[in-house]
Amino acid sequence: MMIYLDNSATTKPFPEVVDSFVTVATKYFGNPSSLHELGMKAERLLTQAREQIAASLQVKPSEIIFTSGGTEANNFAIKGVAFQYRHRGNHIITTAIEHPSVSEACHQLEQLGFEVTYLPVNENGVVTVEQVKKALRDDTILVSIMHVNNEVGAIQPVEEIGELLSNYPKTIFHVDRVQGISKVPLDMKKAHIDLCTMSAHKFHGLRGAGILYVRQGIQLSPLLAGGGQEMQLRSGTENVPAIVAMAKALRMSLEKYDKQIDYLLEVKQAWLNELKEIPFIQINTPLEHSAPHIINFSLDGIKPEVFVHELEKNDIFVSTTSACSSKKKAPSKTLLAMGMGDKRAESGIRISLSFENTLEEIPIAIAVMKKAIEKLREVTR
Amino acid sequence: MMIYLDNSATTKPFPEVVDSFVTVATKYFGNPSSLHELGMKAERLLTQAREQIAASLQVKPSEIIFTSGGTEANNFAIKGVAFQYRHRGNHIITTAIEHPSVSEACHQLEQLGFEVTYLPVNENGVVTVEQVKKALRDDTILVSIMHVNNEVGAIQPVEEIGELLSNYPKTIFHVDRVQGISKVPLDMKKAHIDLCTMSAHKFHGLRGAGILYVRQGIQLSPLLAGGGQEMQLRSGTENVPAIVAMAKALRMSLEKYDKQIDYLLEVKQAWLNELKEIPFIQINTPLEHSAPHIINFSLDGIKPEVFVHELEKNDIFVSTTSACSSKKKAPSKTLLAMGMGDKRAESGIRISLSFENTLEEIPIAIAVMKKAIEKLREVTR
Repeated sequence: MMIYLDNSATTKPFPEVVDSFVTVATKYFGNPSSLHELGMKAERLLTQAREQIAASLQVKPSEIIFTSGGTEANNFAIKGVAFQYRHRGNHIITTAIEHPSVSEACHQLEQLGFEVTYLPVNENGVVTVEQVKKALRDDTILVSIMHVNNEVGAIQPVEEIGELLSNYPKTIFHVDRVQGISKVPLDMKKAHIDLCTMSAHKFHGLRGAGILYVRQGIQLSPLLAGGGQEMQLRSGTENVPAIVAMAKALRMSLEKYDKQIDYLLEVKQAWLNELKEIPFIQINTPLEHSAPHIINFSLDGIKPEVFVHELEKNDIFVSTTSACSSKKKAPSKTLLAMGMGDKRAESGIRISLSFENTLEEIPIAIAVMKKAIEKLREVTR
Repeated sequence: MMIYLDNSATTKPFPEVVDSFVTVATKYFGNPSSLHELGMKAERLLTQAREQIAASLQVKPSEIIFTSGGTEANNFAIKGVAFQYRHRGNHIITTAIEHPSVSEACHQLEQLGFEVTYLPVNENGVVTVEQVKKALRDDTILVSIMHVNNEVGAIQPVEEIGELLSNYPKTIFHVDRVQGISKVPLDMKKAHIDLCTMSAHKFHGLRGAGILYVRQGIQLSPLLAGGGQEMQLRSGTENVPAIVAMAKALRMSLEKYDKQIDYLLEVKQAWLNELKEIPFIQINTPLEHSAPHIINFSLDGIKPEVFVHELEKNDIFVSTTSACSSKKKAPSKTLLAMGMGDKRAESGIRISLSFENTLEEIPIAIAVMKKAIEKLREVTR
């Protein structure tokens, strides 16, 4: 039996979602831009998917822009604001713990003459509304802050930051909601969010589809210019099969997590209870204000990648920091930002749960982990 | 029986390609960046797909960068060169008949201070190597010229232009090969191409995957920055299912068209023979140096969109100009650039074939077209 604990890297798609993809790809393969009936059928499916997703997220269909995924949506939001509003100002505020698709996009803009403030976080991995307020300037065109941190699960106070920014109409507020969607509630309208990123394959949809919510009235310079699809904001033949599949995945995912959120929290707590009893393990995930599906801990004296491989021999799959950073073997930037020091930041392990994980898996996985720690500490001693 | 004649908008995916997608999406859903075995399996599939595609295109695996499609690849090529080499120069050369994903990307760069020369074409829709030579300047960093025009099928002399540009090492040569791949041979190495765009759904693959060939030694500023996938050039969790499916589609497509190119040419010629006998039809596709799958004609005195809908009643699917432009009802920019005048440029119809189209379809479709013309001329008279 496989115990998959890497759901923040990617999730297993719902079988029904794969079926939807196949039906659309096979029977409704027309290009939605084509005038004829085959194109119009595809366009109707696209419109339906947009309406379903908008209803799920309680926003307008015209505020939903489909992208190829989270990385594109984050790059589009950040560069789209920067190029569109460059005459208004050139200052951007973000945090030290963003996903690389936010921080690297910001680094590129720095090379083009923009100025970026990277706000530090506290020991819980959280940025405060006061920090944002202090960093705001007359020429701040964008504040980009993630909802749920992908490495440790810390929840950022985006509602309060949005409230603050509602007093700064010239500053656009972008939220990376990739890890939070369906697991941590967020009312995008109430939080005064202007731009919000989501990715299908993180909620049991398929690779190749993501969402950028673009609040009505916000202008963006297109990242992908061309045929003018997606209300002139994102060109390229629409990936209708993946988008229809995403609409289904979002609906199913919201339902499942809504029903099972208490159980998920129970599973998380049970994990924490077991882990904190193991010597050489230090819990990094903040106990308060963290997402129900992410647990991060450091292993004293063990190389995390060796630990990952030891567990996989027993069909248990965990990750070192985030998937995107796992091959770089650099210390976790989130753990560093939380003030944990190099050694602890270099030995982080992330467990990320889905609604499919159970309490029954825990004793099995914990036994394997204990053995692995014993064996690997033996080796390094 | 459906007669699908809109293959330049999108093609029907091979059933085997859909099967590959499903297998990978279901069984190998791991994130290729994850260190564990599930991630490594996905990464091996990705590596295999890259090797297969590189072998098919006779280039190195490290020169294949996967994107979400043709529009992303074109935007990446053009903006990637512009931002990477902006200190070297700010002049770009392209043509008046490029796909919008090239021309609109160039327009965006003009707004950011770059200078773009849009070369006109002759009455056959072709740009000459002499025009390119004359337009070259010391500060020209990029020449972007399509292989096969998407509206009329005119083949551009990219080999000769590449030969010319091989004497200008500071000028990068990008070719949009979206319409040409598998239908019109092109040796990218011989043609001295630095960057080359392809899109899976135009060769019976699935939406959501494309290729940018990046010749070894060419640097690009990433369009999608982030986790550093695709050799640091294109971030975002790799769409392994769609990429594996694309590798299969490319192999199958190259084989099919290689075998059936003579038949395809015969079908095209048979279409032309019939069409030129119909009054009120003017053939726009050049008879020489045009692709084997695209036929463009204008309809005197008939609104092209009405003609499209008349044909669809009989399950015959054609398009007005390109899919991307079909809803704008603007005159075809390619036909205008060929000097055809507003009226003819506003009434273009495109037939685009695949290996699945047959000689047997022609009399059926022609009979329907004749009736449609008769009826619609009646109405407008």
